[in-house]
Amino acid sequence: MKTLMIRGNAFHTPTLGNVEVLQDYLFLINEDGVLTDVVSPTNDNYDEFYETHRNHADYIHLKDSQFLLPGFIDTHVHAPQWPQAGKALHVDLPTWLNTYTFPLENSYQDEAFAQTVYADLIDTLLANGTTTSLYFGSIHLEPNRILAQLCADKGQRAFIGNVVMDDISQSPDFYRNSSPEQAVATTESFLSFTQHLSKTTPQGIYGVVTPRFIPTCSDEVLADLGKLASTYDAPIQSHCSEGDWEHAYVQERTGKRDTQALYDFGLLTNKTVMAHCVFLNDEDALLFKQSGASIAHCPVSNVLFANAIAPIRHRLEQGVNVGLATDISGGYSPSMFDAMRQAILSSRTLEDGVHHTLAPEKRGCPNSRFDFRHALYMATVGGATALSLQTGLFKPGYSFDALLIDTQAPDSNLRTYDFDTPEDILQKTIFLGQRTNIVSTWVQGRSVYKRKNN
Amino acid sequence: MKTLMIRGNAFHTPTLGNVEVLQDYLFLINEDGVLTDVVSPTNDNYDEFYETHRNHADYIHLKDSQFLLPGFIDTHVHAPQWPQAGKALHVDLPTWLNTYTFPLENSYQDEAFAQTVYADLIDTLLANGTTTSLYFGSIHLEPNRILAQLCADKGQRAFIGNVVMDDISQSPDFYRNSSPEQAVATTESFLSFTQHLSKTTPQGIYGVVTPRFIPTCSDEVLADLGKLASTYDAPIQSHCSEGDWEHAYVQERTGKRDTQALYDFGLLTNKTVMAHCVFLNDEDALLFKQSGASIAHCPVSNVLFANAIAPIRHRLEQGVNVGLATDISGGYSPSMFDAMRQAILSSRTLEDGVHHTLAPEKRGCPNSRFDFRHALYMATVGGATALSLQTGLFKPGYSFDALLIDTQAPDSNLRTYDFDTPEDILQKTIFLGQRTNIVSTWVQGRSVYKRKNN
Ligand SMILES: [Zn+2]
Ligand SMILES: [Zn+2]
Repeated sequence: MKTLMIRGNAFHTPTLGNVEVLQDYLFLINEDGVLTDVVSPTNDNYDEFYETHRNHADYIHLKDSQFLLPGFIDTHVHAPQWPQAGKALHVDLPTWLNTYTFPLENSYQDEAFAQTVYADLIDTLLANGTTTSLYFGSIHLEPNRILAQLCADKGQRAFIGNVVMDDISQSPDFYRNSSPEQAVATTESFLSFTQHLSKTTPQGIYGVVTPRFIPTCSDEVLADLGKLASTYDAPIQSHCSEGDWEHAYVQERTGKRDTQALYDFGLLTNKTVMAHCVFLNDEDALLFKQSGASIAHCPVSNVLFANAIAPIRHRLEQGVNVGLATDISGGYSPSMFDAMRQAILSSRTLEDGVHHTLAPEKRGCPNSRFDFRHALYMATVGGATALSLQTGLFKPGYSFDALLIDTQAPDSNLRTYDFDTPEDILQKTIFLGQRTNIVSTWVQGRSVYKRKNN
Repeated sequence: MKTLMIRGNAFHTPTLGNVEVLQDYLFLINEDGVLTDVVSPTNDNYDEFYETHRNHADYIHLKDSQFLLPGFIDTHVHAPQWPQAGKALHVDLPTWLNTYTFPLENSYQDEAFAQTVYADLIDTLLANGTTTSLYFGSIHLEPNRILAQLCADKGQRAFIGNVVMDDISQSPDFYRNSSPEQAVATTESFLSFTQHLSKTTPQGIYGVVTPRFIPTCSDEVLADLGKLASTYDAPIQSHCSEGDWEHAYVQERTGKRDTQALYDFGLLTNKTVMAHCVFLNDEDALLFKQSGASIAHCPVSNVLFANAIAPIRHRLEQGVNVGLATDISGGYSPSMFDAMRQAILSSRTLEDGVHHTLAPEKRGCPNSRFDFRHALYMATVGGATALSLQTGLFKPGYSFDALLIDTQAPDSNLRTYDFDTPEDILQKTIFLGQRTNIVSTWVQGRSVYKRKNN
């Protein structure tokens, strides 16, 4: 790969709630896909730097309607559920799981099906600007390998979990690990496979220890997975305190709150990302903070399946790191734009409440709202922090995972005017951006998507 | 215009909550843009009908990935606010109105600006499948005439209101009718203009009596507008019981609830559409039902500005007619797909509630949820009923306002599989459809949009 120089505007969020506007900067990316120089036009050496690299590097000069954003990091995606995105969202959770989800996840033993669906999913995510995904796979090793290989080949940075569910009472007969030992052995095989694969994959492919959630896992398998994660220094993911049912079930089975139980199994570390976390209390959240574990906030699926809105602003103020997620297919959309929008809307609904018959002061939770700046932070820096990645910002030493946004792309609903400030244009992009506005996607400096109709 | 015959699949919602799937039907549209025949393949005359019309009519045979939907009816759009869609959604309501909205609405006295923005808005709405809009214009006559003429020329069916705001304490000096008489005279001029324009416009262009809302209007102008609406038998629109502030303000000024005050001013008729209606009580809603007035539900803007969620399922069960709306630019998106999705999500949040610390039975409002079928009904039949239009269904005698959806259009996030039922495909379309999936739009049988990149 040749070095790449880009000249133009960019936005990123170095700190929570703040946007930095980089206007007419030069960005130099080396052969390893790492940003080496981010040069401001106020820098005395700007012109010299430009002249020096103009003829040696690949060069892109952004149009006035274009700017860079950091690539989106989706911290919770069930890869095998992609074919049912947008379907069966009117049924109850047991029906959704048993009639739709588990049979579908089981069907990836057909490797041709796995190849077709996973290739399409990765292409779709890259087209929607997701440069890194934290995936749940299925319980079978081979389709997870296929997913990992496809991510490697297509250039997406991926964290992939071989899902574990061995509890007889909560997992269906047709889709369950045959024993705790079998579940742990499969997980270990997959960790070895991804370690090997990552050696030849510049952007990185990582295996993740992935108990589905406490209800579908035996105590034995949970403890063994905690040990395995420690041995391999592996990332961990699961679901935590998603809805009323789960939260109560864990309390009853373990005598502990979900967070404490996960901690005691060795599953809450600084490499842990827990989806949902709607029903954490402040002590649980403190345990997240102390462990260095992150929340994957799934605003769309939480509306449909979680029975309440996660108090994300409050968790951020407690110092807990939060990434954002689509949660395909509990969430219907593969677009992190949709996740950012719903995160903002849900925070407003939490602040205001819902019952029109209640007095305003009894209706909502004050100081819950956040805005487009927090949403972008979670979708980029929050995700990078959760996964211990040096990306999500345009800074020297950071991997260049980026999107080229064009506000004037064909089929766009986004409009800008002379009287818009740069921050206005960013806010409009967060609220009205769609995959049509993403004309190029890079991961680790490599071009992984270009829009055809542009 | 030649007659048009289309062969293929379609969905519509003849009754609330129910979808009818029309598979491989023939649809014949006459020179006036009216559906004359809707022929099922089980009809004995199907083949003969096909042969008779195949060579005389324009003919379209839909692909397997394509189907028809009724055109969307957006029952609340502030046309002059289009340039600020997606902007300033993090500020409070007074700032939003005084710093952004009123100065922008005032700027349409520049007729070139009005031409440019309104042409783009109508093109954008047609591309997003909105075949009929109920617009708020601004307080000035000329830009509203420009909007009406553009809708006539571009083929969109439009209901347009010359906005009235004459109250000195609640309207800014720079953007206010100079007197009640001036406001009424302007409204009357605009009604005459649109009556005249509609004579040469097959799809219909209608003037609408449009007091902005009670707080910005004097009692005198409200009473006179009520009389004017009666004289002209004109449609009426305004805002009703949107947020805590408005609802309390009207109560204090008039000593009545918002609905009762509007009724007493003669502004609640069977040609009335009131935006929001979040804070109606059951008696207010009964007055809507008895008057034949409709609610324009604005789910996106309600999250941002209304302080609560409108209990739409309950209103529907009371027998009140409800249309759906984008509420540009309190709502950021011009897409009725986004309005349908947020309507569904908000109904789920209302049912479940928001506070994770409350017991489930105290958290939400039971039986509030509805699904994609109700959302499509409101976006089509509900809007048609609100505006007394014979459209929104594929039935003989109905105007042919329709969208050609292609699930496999380029840049689409929508995926279908052999194991999806027709209703699954419709649900996926409601949750994942975007303007890229709309490849053609017809209003009154006339082709008004074709996607270029298809
Ligand atoms: Zn999940
Ligand atoms: Zn409005």
